[in-house]
Amino acid sequence: MLELQSMSMRLHQGVLYLLDQTLLPHQQHWFAVPDVPSLVSAIQRLQVRGAPAIGIAASLLLAVLAEQGHSRAQLQQAAQTLRAARPTAVNLMNNIDTMLLAIGQEPLREQVVAAAIQLFMQDVQLCAQLAEHGAALVQPGERLLTHCNTGGLATAGVGTALGVIAKAQQQGKSISVWVDETRPLLQGGRLTAWELSQLSIPYQLICDNMAGMLMAQGQVDRIFVGADRIAANGDFANKVGTYSLAVLAQYHRVPFYVVAPSTTVDKTCPHGAAIPIEQRHGDEVRGMQGAIGVDGCYQQSRWAPVESAVYNPAFDVTPAALVTGWVLEQGVFSQADIAAGALARA
Amino acid sequence: MLELQSMSMRLHQGVLYLLDQTLLPHQQHWFAVPDVPSLVSAIQRLQVRGAPAIGIAASLLLAVLAEQGHSRAQLQQAAQTLRAARPTAVNLMNNIDTMLLAIGQEPLREQVVAAAIQLFMQDVQLCAQLAEHGAALVQPGERLLTHCNTGGLATAGVGTALGVIAKAQQQGKSISVWVDETRPLLQGGRLTAWELSQLSIPYQLICDNMAGMLMAQGQVDRIFVGADRIAANGDFANKVGTYSLAVLAQYHRVPFYVVAPSTTVDKTCPHGAAIPIEQRHGDEVRGMQGAIGVDGCYQQSRWAPVESAVYNPAFDVTPAALVTGWVLEQGVFSQADIAAGALARA
Repeated sequence: MLELQSMSMRLHQGVLYLLDQTLLPHQQHWFAVPDVPSLVSAIQRLQVRGAPAIGIAASLLLAVLAEQGHSRAQLQQAAQTLRAARPTAVNLMNNIDTMLLAIGQEPLREQVVAAAIQLFMQDVQLCAQLAEHGAALVQPGERLLTHCNTGGLATAGVGTALGVIAKAQQQGKSISVWVDETRPLLQGGRLTAWELSQLSIPYQLICDNMAGMLMAQGQVDRIFVGADRIAANGDFANKVGTYSLAVLAQYHRVPFYVVAPSTTVDKTCPHGAAIPIEQRHGDEVRGMQGAIGVDGCYQQSRWAPVESAVYNPAFDVTPAALVTGWVLEQGVFSQADIAAGALARA
Repeated sequence: MLELQSMSMRLHQGVLYLLDQTLLPHQQHWFAVPDVPSLVSAIQRLQVRGAPAIGIAASLLLAVLAEQGHSRAQLQQAAQTLRAARPTAVNLMNNIDTMLLAIGQEPLREQVVAAAIQLFMQDVQLCAQLAEHGAALVQPGERLLTHCNTGGLATAGVGTALGVIAKAQQQGKSISVWVDETRPLLQGGRLTAWELSQLSIPYQLICDNMAGMLMAQGQVDRIFVGADRIAANGDFANKVGTYSLAVLAQYHRVPFYVVAPSTTVDKTCPHGAAIPIEQRHGDEVRGMQGAIGVDGCYQQSRWAPVESAVYNPAFDVTPAALVTGWVLEQGVFSQADIAAGALARA
């Protein structure tokens, strides 16, 4: 029986468990995910989130269903449903495509299980490589800034941007971190702050609108962010707010890196304008319903007028021109590398 | 007996009442402010907020105390205590200085009451002038963006930046408004959204980190913000996040205006670096305690780890170089006007 464990995902005695990321940091609650509707709901509610993690979780569920004896047709249907759970992060689509290849092979159960294990282990390995490449960019004593959550919760491994930061700390570089709280769903304030506390890395939590002021004061040396999809030309989608950070970084000449495995690259996507951006429910902006995990607090936690119109994109697109470097498992690519087609070969 | 009424302040039968802005938009609760400690607390807790409004409220309380027969020495002491309630907004200091001149004159009671009335009525008049000058900049159909709350709640009159927006709407210009929610204390999401709803002006609430994305999409035609202190060279302090907006506006070539009466100008302050920036409690960023008004919800509404370090400046400084125009009661000043010393004569 397949057994796997990451910070936020666990496969144990044939059951997939997820750490409910809407309840962190106050509760560490694992819940079983028995079927496709449960996982789609968990993905859409952000109980599991992070571009690599949702791709891995979907793959693991397909392995569980294969072990339970689901047919090829059932697995194909399950894969298609999971593939559409969220539109922006391409890792989910890429991983499902890998799983669909396995679902097409014999012996079915063994091929599907092996493919899921392979994707999980590959992500662990990719994160480790990203961390090495990215940490080499960090100088001792630097004050880093990051957005959203890109750590162990968001991947099967040590993370992408946050994995880089953790690695730099392990290398004894005495870094400190500015953590964007990342409205509306506060992945920075809830999850990155929690991971950094666990790692004993010094950090200060800020509201997203304070990052520019800190850059103007010379208090930010380097910025690392993750990605949900990187287009062939280097433009990338990531949690909303990333684009503003990139503009502010360029204005203040702060190096700005995107950290992601090649499973986040969409070679068929020519540029950022072609990336679909998920629009989410207005209540996430009117208050803090949805991903904070205390449903009973909804009435108290809505601060805007109930009738207020809301614009709530989950992601934005950062053009390649604003990026200092792309940290992939192959190394750190420059703008010249990207222009020369590095991502097509990644 | 002195009787005055604005959207957020009321002087009635010798008692000063304030509309508790921490309870809006869900409750409209007026509370009496009997003495200096009560008003200092209300200012620090943001039950009354907005640079002009806190200056007016302090002046009105001095008038109330004068009517109650407080001595010159008592009034001088009260004025000094009120003057120090919050450090950044200069209107409070400017208004208190005006009141101190009145406290030095005879007959004491009449002089102090007359000075407070004069400051209140002057602010109403100043807001009306700002609104005229600013609204003249707005073209039909424009999509405006604003930060924090600068409307009737924040002044004795129609407001500063939000007064401009309301005036443009009255002129039939079919505007719409993007409202920055304005973390951490959500003055945009709670107060500006509420005022715009009252005014039937179409708006969409956004998280602060979405403004840059909207500018990149060409969805923002013009930005109006208020100010807490304008230095002699045109640099100004305003709610944190204003600086980032200004950088993003310049990058995207979106006109960016600061709207404030001359009572917000500090002629003795040479530049923005000399403006003291208030640092506030970390709990405002760890969750939403403090200015949302539901104290019992504190445990549920803290999302960050309890031990997380926080950096929480209430304001930031925007350099004059990023400002398209300064809307004062005398008109709209350009960068050239400011460089030629317009603020020294304002």
